[in-house]
Amino acid sequence: MIAVLKAGTTQQQIDSLTGWFEQQGLEIHISRGKYQTILGLVGDTTKIDTELLEALDMVESVKRISEPFKSANRKFHPEDTVVTIREDIRIGGGNFQFIAGPCSVESREQILQVAQAVSASGAKLLRGGAFKPRTSPYDFQGLKGEGLALLSEAKKQTGMPIVTEIMNINHLELFEDVDVIQVGARNMQNFELLRELGRVHKPILLKRGLANTLKELLMSAEYIMAGGNNDVILCERGVRTFETYTRNTLDLSAVPMLHELTHLPVIVDPSHATGISRLVKPMAMAAAAAGADGLIIEVHNDPPRALCDGAQSLTPEQFDDVVKSVNRILEAVR
Amino acid sequence: MIAVLKAGTTQQQIDSLTGWFEQQGLEIHISRGKYQTILGLVGDTTKIDTELLEALDMVESVKRISEPFKSANRKFHPEDTVVTIREDIRIGGGNFQFIAGPCSVESREQILQVAQAVSASGAKLLRGGAFKPRTSPYDFQGLKGEGLALLSEAKKQTGMPIVTEIMNINHLELFEDVDVIQVGARNMQNFELLRELGRVHKPILLKRGLANTLKELLMSAEYIMAGGNNDVILCERGVRTFETYTRNTLDLSAVPMLHELTHLPVIVDPSHATGISRLVKPMAMAAAAAGADGLIIEVHNDPPRALCDGAQSLTPEQFDDVVKSVNRILEAVR
Amino acid sequence: MIAVLKAGTTQQQIDSLTGWFEQQGLEIHISRGKYQTILGLVGDTTKIDTELLEALDMVESVKRISEPFKSANRKFHPEDTVVTIREDIRIGGGNFQFIAGPCSVESREQILQVAQAVSASGAKLLRGGAFKPRTSPYDFQGLKGEGLALLSEAKKQTGMPIVTEIMNINHLELFEDVDVIQVGARNMQNFELLRELGRVHKPILLKRGLANTLKELLMSAEYIMAGGNNDVILCERGVRTFETYTRNTLDLSAVPMLHELTHLPVIVDPSHATGISRLVKPMAMAAAAAGADGLIIEVHNDPPRALCDGAQSLTPEQFDDVVKSVNRILEAVR
Amino acid sequence: MIAVLKAGTTQQQIDSLTGWFEQQGLEIHISRGKYQTILGLVGDTTKIDTELLEALDMVESVKRISEPFKSANRKFHPEDTVVTIREDIRIGGGNFQFIAGPCSVESREQILQVAQAVSASGAKLLRGGAFKPRTSPYDFQGLKGEGLALLSEAKKQTGMPIVTEIMNINHLELFEDVDVIQVGARNMQNFELLRELGRVHKPILLKRGLANTLKELLMSAEYIMAGGNNDVILCERGVRTFETYTRNTLDLSAVPMLHELTHLPVIVDPSHATGISRLVKPMAMAAAAAGADGLIIEVHNDPPRALCDGAQSLTPEQFDDVVKSVNRILEAVR
Repeated sequence: MIAVLKAGTTQQQIDSLTGWFEQQGLEIHISRGKYQTILGLVGDTTKIDTELLEALDMVESVKRISEPFKSANRKFHPEDTVVTIREDIRIGGGNFQFIAGPCSVESREQILQVAQAVSASGAKLLRGGAFKPRTSPYDFQGLKGEGLALLSEAKKQTGMPIVTEIMNINHLELFEDVDVIQVGARNMQNFELLRELGRVHKPILLKRGLANTLKELLMSAEYIMAGGNNDVILCERGVRTFETYTRNTLDLSAVPMLHELTHLPVIVDPSHATGISRLVKPMAMAAAAAGADGLIIEVHNDPPRALCDGAQSLTPEQFDDVVKSVNRILEAVR
Repeated sequence: MIAVLKAGTTQQQIDSLTGWFEQQGLEIHISRGKYQTILGLVGDTTKIDTELLEALDMVESVKRISEPFKSANRKFHPEDTVVTIREDIRIGGGNFQFIAGPCSVESREQILQVAQAVSASGAKLLRGGAFKPRTSPYDFQGLKGEGLALLSEAKKQTGMPIVTEIMNINHLELFEDVDVIQVGARNMQNFELLRELGRVHKPILLKRGLANTLKELLMSAEYIMAGGNNDVILCERGVRTFETYTRNTLDLSAVPMLHELTHLPVIVDPSHATGISRLVKPMAMAAAAAGADGLIIEVHNDPPRALCDGAQSLTPEQFDDVVKSVNRILEAVR
Repeated sequence: MIAVLKAGTTQQQIDSLTGWFEQQGLEIHISRGKYQTILGLVGDTTKIDTELLEALDMVESVKRISEPFKSANRKFHPEDTVVTIREDIRIGGGNFQFIAGPCSVESREQILQVAQAVSASGAKLLRGGAFKPRTSPYDFQGLKGEGLALLSEAKKQTGMPIVTEIMNINHLELFEDVDVIQVGARNMQNFELLRELGRVHKPILLKRGLANTLKELLMSAEYIMAGGNNDVILCERGVRTFETYTRNTLDLSAVPMLHELTHLPVIVDPSHATGISRLVKPMAMAAAAAGADGLIIEVHNDPPRALCDGAQSLTPEQFDDVVKSVNRILEAVR
Repeated sequence: MIAVLKAGTTQQQIDSLTGWFEQQGLEIHISRGKYQTILGLVGDTTKIDTELLEALDMVESVKRISEPFKSANRKFHPEDTVVTIREDIRIGGGNFQFIAGPCSVESREQILQVAQAVSASGAKLLRGGAFKPRTSPYDFQGLKGEGLALLSEAKKQTGMPIVTEIMNINHLELFEDVDVIQVGARNMQNFELLRELGRVHKPILLKRGLANTLKELLMSAEYIMAGGNNDVILCERGVRTFETYTRNTLDLSAVPMLHELTHLPVIVDPSHATGISRLVKPMAMAAAAAGADGLIIEVHNDPPRALCDGAQSLTPEQFDDVVKSVNRILEAVR
């Protein structure tokens, strides 16, 4: 961390500041210029609040050299984290998984049909929304508890672990049979929810917010990890841009960039990112080529009749084709 | 609402669709072209889920002519909503208020000093954070319950109603003495929180999210109002843009635009929007000139030592100057 | 400027780099840490290409402390620049001007009528487009040379100096009678055009690009000033955001921020920023309250029939009301 | 195209408007509601200026159903355009090409070395900047005419056609030996330049602007094609987002989306998009997986000493590895 002090800062002020840094266990290097004094701070600066520092009268600006996240930082944990969902189902560190299922659980028949189909094609995890975040209070909000029960039934029938979104920490007890808890894009900075999920003993699938940076995503992962839960799977699902042909803009450079910054697995959601079923296949292939650790894809047995996001859902047949195409890419990449 | 049907849609399909619309109480106008059939839907389309509609095979595109929000819509409620915080303190419909106080409550001495100072300058409501949303889990998170108690004490001493942020609906019982409950930018689409606040009998101050549109802000207000709580105060607090000299970009055209779209009062937060104390005065004056119904401004008795956001806090003296300048603008506007 | 060198940089490499900095006339302060060496560079670093520096093997990162623009920088030129268009018409340093006229010059009758009307209301400069940048090659592109001739005639009749946009440096000889040459948002980084305008002896009105930062705007001003033309008027005209109710988002905090960074005058275009005539008045008033040095406003004698941007044009009567309202704000501000 | 007319529009007004549409060769379908009248316009609406239409008093809103571009539109030209640079070097319609070379031409030795190396690895076209758009007037602006001469020499030695950027139409005569003329991101809406390039008999490589939509990119292609030059190659090179770890955000969904919208070839520039050499390989592979028709990649014989954008340049060895990896993806895709 570098702190630039204003001209006119007295020696006494500098001594008081450097004394405080030393108490925080930091090593300090001072460079005095005519117009500025520059302090180089070496050590663990993760817990220094840069806003507090910048608020001091004598400080002109502060710049981090190292990152503000620690548990998620690859520098301190060079090995890939491998998240184990079941002994035979892992994500990260070379383990690639397909997670598939409908946007919303709608009926017993629907979820069972879709689960069997995607399992046959090679998906190892079943996704399905029971609690749905919707912009309008008048839109379909999910089957809630009933949806979770249907997911459990599909899990029993197919043996697939289930992934579903939590929107309210008070619902946690309903999630006992859920294998991976998803935090949606709109809750990426719901810090109270993240903090509680840090105490849960289940993997968390954390989606990037619509206009959030990778640093903010990693700080949100850090909230969960700071509570003791290290099984965080990051998910790139498109960011808001000015483009209107696609719903969002899938940021695939986030995949190799995150792999550099963190040891956590990174998966990609091409369905929500594009909002268009025709673009799911090329984007799924591109994500695999970019080094993603998995894909989460919407599949519906009857997309035109889906109660939510039908426009981006694949049929089971289309999903089967995507799996085959992605597998060819994975072989080419290895 | 206009729905464009694809070429090749059969008469039977059209009949089935129009039948459904009629059941929803809508009047339908059909225009048949060689390539498309256009349905014009007249009536209350608020509760039509456009995504469901667009997911139908036969539908090419759907366009709303009227807005998807209803309770918040000025068309159905032409008079300005006036939010009454106390008999003598109202916001909206020509009632302009200054809300002032520190970013965070830090100590008894701090909050009492600031409260007395801003009250003397003309602020009628006291703000202060007890629960603070911070990007990093290692940054100062507020005094929490203790902060709320200190706010109550300041309220007792000065008679000022208090405004403070809620981050978790489970904290609600701690907010009994709070007069206006704030929803922060990061929780603008925390739909579970919004829904619960719809059942509360207190005014809600709803801040616009960092990358959210005015329509999304109004849909979030609609979540609260759909629960029966109509006392929603909207707050423009800057949106994320590519500009880096200022923390965010204050969107002042949101003020007259929202006044057109909704009857709810609209206030402006120039402190968070710019992040720079020197810009608070010109932006506060501009907000008043643009027709805002109030201002929420950070004031700290010792900004350089503030535990949070000191860079954007005014001293009590600076705040006094802002109030005087804004009052001159308000007179010129009347 | 601060350069952070990587661990493992040899003394010989450091000597070679510091030697080069000394040749550029910079003073160097070295701070050696275990993991990094930090170089503090003091002096005129404007002409140091930071990309070249960052490309060096030994350099980890480079941070500017001072700004990369020099001629436009208030630090080196603390007094406001006052641009003199005619002895009695100045902009900047306390001189506020209204610039008004139609988006496009359409006919002799139109431009003369509008010119007389806006002059009577208090506008001192006439604007009108002869060359129009349009997204589609099939849209109306302006009357070109004929439009310039009509502007000249209006200037002769009313005595108002004229402001119009240049899109191609090869048209320069047609601009002989033009008093202020405008560079549009889409050409803000047409560096070849800017460079040529640096050799012209007329004031340049430089509009901010749709997604450009203030630093980029100032660097573009620097291109003009580097050629010897210091009469640059900056214009905030809205930036692209995710908001769709307004065409762009007017960034009024740009006004006080630019006043801090530069000595050049700053005007505001509320017509293009919002795209909605009803928002022009509140935004014009807000711009004046924020400290703008002038306003450029679209006025048309028959807005619904305007060949371009009619939706944002005021009638002469509406413009008269805006001038009166803005003048009240200007009095309140003084 | 759909036009919604306001309540209260008279029959005479409607007749006059529909009469005008009929003159433009459009078929009209009228749907009358109590609150609105909806006109459905069928036929070639490309040349209808929607802004003019929206400016009419009686019109509430206008919505295009079909796209505003015509020459570039796949609907009217279903076959892929194949751009022939030389009999044996084609782009589009299944022909994939690597374009490689340094950001800037710096010296005879540099350009010859790089050209030979990339040619040996499989690049068929040589890129190199002679005129460089730089944000600061004080940064290196390219070798200009001398740079073009060095490119010609490299072409003679290696037989590789050359691709280089034009910034000023007055330089056109210097481009006689250039095979593909590039329009840079900052000039994507320099309509005067585009119009002139419509008269040139050489392929144009058109880069997407930093904050431009795909529709705007296609409208800019339309400017060139409207002049008679149909050999336009589109290039996705990253858009501006809030992410700061990467320079821009590569929008790979643009590739399949553009393939749907237009018959023109689409290539990808992973070097400028990410600004980081380590990300070029995964993004190049992802672009190939997404269906790109080619890649334009920066290669420098000595990246740390590059006069421009060294941080994103590959060494010839790294480029060789990228070509091999991309070729494996291309095989997997076929």
